[in-house]
Amino acid sequence: MYTLDTEGHITTPAGFLAGAVAAGVKYDNRLDLAVITSDRACSAAGVFTRNAIRSAPVLVSSRRIADGRARAVIANSGCANACTGSRGVEDAQKMTTLLATRLGIDTSEVLVASTGVVGTYIPLDRIERGIQDLELSPANGHLFARAIMTTDTRPKEVAATIDDARGRYSIGAAAKGSGMIHPNMGTLLAFITTDATVEPGYLKRTLSAAVDGTLNMVTVDGDTSPSDTTIILANGASGVPPITEKNGDEFARALYCVCEHLAQQIAADGEGATRLLKVIVTGAESVADARLAARTIASSPLVKSAINGADPNWGRIACAAGRSGAAVDADKIAITLNRVQVMKAGMPMLFNEQRLRSSLEGREVTVEVSLGVGGCTAIAWGCDLSQDYVTINASYTT
Amino acid sequence: MYTLDTEGHITTPAGFLAGAVAAGVKYDNRLDLAVITSDRACSAAGVFTRNAIRSAPVLVSSRRIADGRARAVIANSGCANACTGSRGVEDAQKMTTLLATRLGIDTSEVLVASTGVVGTYIPLDRIERGIQDLELSPANGHLFARAIMTTDTRPKEVAATIDDARGRYSIGAAAKGSGMIHPNMGTLLAFITTDATVEPGYLKRTLSAAVDGTLNMVTVDGDTSPSDTTIILANGASGVPPITEKNGDEFARALYCVCEHLAQQIAADGEGATRLLKVIVTGAESVADARLAARTIASSPLVKSAINGADPNWGRIACAAGRSGAAVDADKIAITLNRVQVMKAGMPMLFNEQRLRSSLEGREVTVEVSLGVGGCTAIAWGCDLSQDYVTINASYTT
Repeated sequence: MYTLDTEGHITTPAGFLAGAVAAGVKYDNRLDLAVITSDRACSAAGVFTRNAIRSAPVLVSSRRIADGRARAVIANSGCANACTGSRGVEDAQKMTTLLATRLGIDTSEVLVASTGVVGTYIPLDRIERGIQDLELSPANGHLFARAIMTTDTRPKEVAATIDDARGRYSIGAAAKGSGMIHPNMGTLLAFITTDATVEPGYLKRTLSAAVDGTLNMVTVDGDTSPSDTTIILANGASGVPPITEKNGDEFARALYCVCEHLAQQIAADGEGATRLLKVIVTGAESVADARLAARTIASSPLVKSAINGADPNWGRIACAAGRSGAAVDADKIAITLNRVQVMKAGMPMLFNEQRLRSSLEGREVTVEVSLGVGGCTAIAWGCDLSQDYVTINASYTT
Repeated sequence: MYTLDTEGHITTPAGFLAGAVAAGVKYDNRLDLAVITSDRACSAAGVFTRNAIRSAPVLVSSRRIADGRARAVIANSGCANACTGSRGVEDAQKMTTLLATRLGIDTSEVLVASTGVVGTYIPLDRIERGIQDLELSPANGHLFARAIMTTDTRPKEVAATIDDARGRYSIGAAAKGSGMIHPNMGTLLAFITTDATVEPGYLKRTLSAAVDGTLNMVTVDGDTSPSDTTIILANGASGVPPITEKNGDEFARALYCVCEHLAQQIAADGEGATRLLKVIVTGAESVADARLAARTIASSPLVKSAINGADPNWGRIACAAGRSGAAVDADKIAITLNRVQVMKAGMPMLFNEQRLRSSLEGREVTVEVSLGVGGCTAIAWGCDLSQDYVTINASYTT
């Protein structure tokens, strides 16, 4: 059994400390440097962007986590340290060395993640001062979540408490992401902690499975970032017996649920978003097809604009499914908007437009599409496209 | 030798007649029914959408043109006749029968194309009255181009006159397209006429090659329409000797140039567009990779928003290239904005930001990206993403 704690955070699990400061990476004195660390060794796993351009922190962290071990993460917002060549990699490594020295641990146990403007170098002197100023405490979970925000309007965090045969333990998580959100493998920045002991190979497989169905199904604008990173640290501080493939079902379910919760929070806070868009695809030939169609619909600018206008323009949904590349039976496709069927067997249905329009004006819109060719299902989360998205992104670097 | 005539139109070639009326398919009494026909038999070719959902007119026309013959096209704007099932197909066929009767030609020689709202049925009674009211004349070329517009703010048309060994003949063209523009094979609606005699097989190959490099490289919003259609009719009225594979170079070049001109006009008039975006990709491993990268960059919401704000945020361009799926060498990628180099060997260059920003405020922005892996090249045309795009599309059906 597990329960989700929406007031929980990344230091809810025992043995984790966090801290954050305004180091001056952002121009406006907001929090921009964050650290999470464990008071003991951890097993660790990560998933990272599939963009061919990988940020320097992704290059460093993905190599370092390959051995299934890590103990601390240093993250900054304001500068992505991407498209910065070998100097960028040296800067990212230097960040981990500085934190390792401060913590008195080995550099190889420190991971790094950065988010913000692409194509500028990290101001290392400010990072160095920031690291000195950090206060690390189990009480700073919420601070960590705030410090990794860029255009996010609110922090994304959650925790879960699991009670199973082996005892009680927990999972905590924080994520950021608002624009350049269309993850491919890893996603945005998401950090997850647990005080369970988890075998590294199983931790990696469980994380990948959870991310594929949740964080990888979020789309804000179709743009995959070179910085996408999800990292989990498992420190065993709860004292419960180790979790493995054989007995991990409850842990895997709770982890999936935590990731799903983060995914919904990220979609709902997409740049300029006024509504959360949930796209459920059924009747697909394969899970891959279902995911492809769901993501294509959730990322279509025309669908997203219609949702912004509370406009039941379901033809755009059908067209997006049709161009997605998923197998679709044009004579069987069916569409439901907020539980009102608008298309059946490839043809229009009569419906009360005024009533549907009112329901589409809510904070959450659910689109269900049956492709009519099989039995596979997927869910994608997105948001509407508003004029504010353009306003935010027409002048981001200035 | 050929010359482009930007004042030319679809009835510039000899032997073609056009007509257009306001039939009442659109709600606001604008022109919405258009016909182009030849005074004699034509060879014909077409390319159509690759969306799995194909509009009824695409289903009818693609089957009918398979024999390389056609003589007239009936086109309407305001209703796409897509997602309308078997009734939609019957309606589209009925439109061709009505026109064939009016013209006294065989129904099998008439093609049909529709554009507008998806998921509503064609008002056949209005179409029937409209066909009766049509006045067909060689002088009505411009009228035709206006009648096929939906959210377009201006008609797209052009002609070319070719002088080669066989004499003088011409090509005329009209196109529409403003939203749901991300063609895949065929594109939007484009109609091309020529008074040359062209062997049907060669006509088809030449049209496909021209469309692949031009109209298929236009992207406004990444949404491929189920109605995309490009049709060419060749009636031989110029009296010049037949064009075949062996002697068709000049014809093929002129046709490519006509399609390129239409492509640029469509991109520049994208929904809400304030600037034409031209993306030139070089250094790709293959032409397919070059096209993929160019289209991905030109359709990235983040790149398009930056162009809207005249913001030299080149990191977004690099990220879009990186996620496109094309082979990219992250240590060799180079980017130029309006001839100013901003990225070289995967790293930032120093440039005069104020001067570049001023140049990005013009009507046309050129982005050049070298992927650093090969010698292949492609061009894509797009436009910026403005707040007006959202305004237009938040309430299109209403």
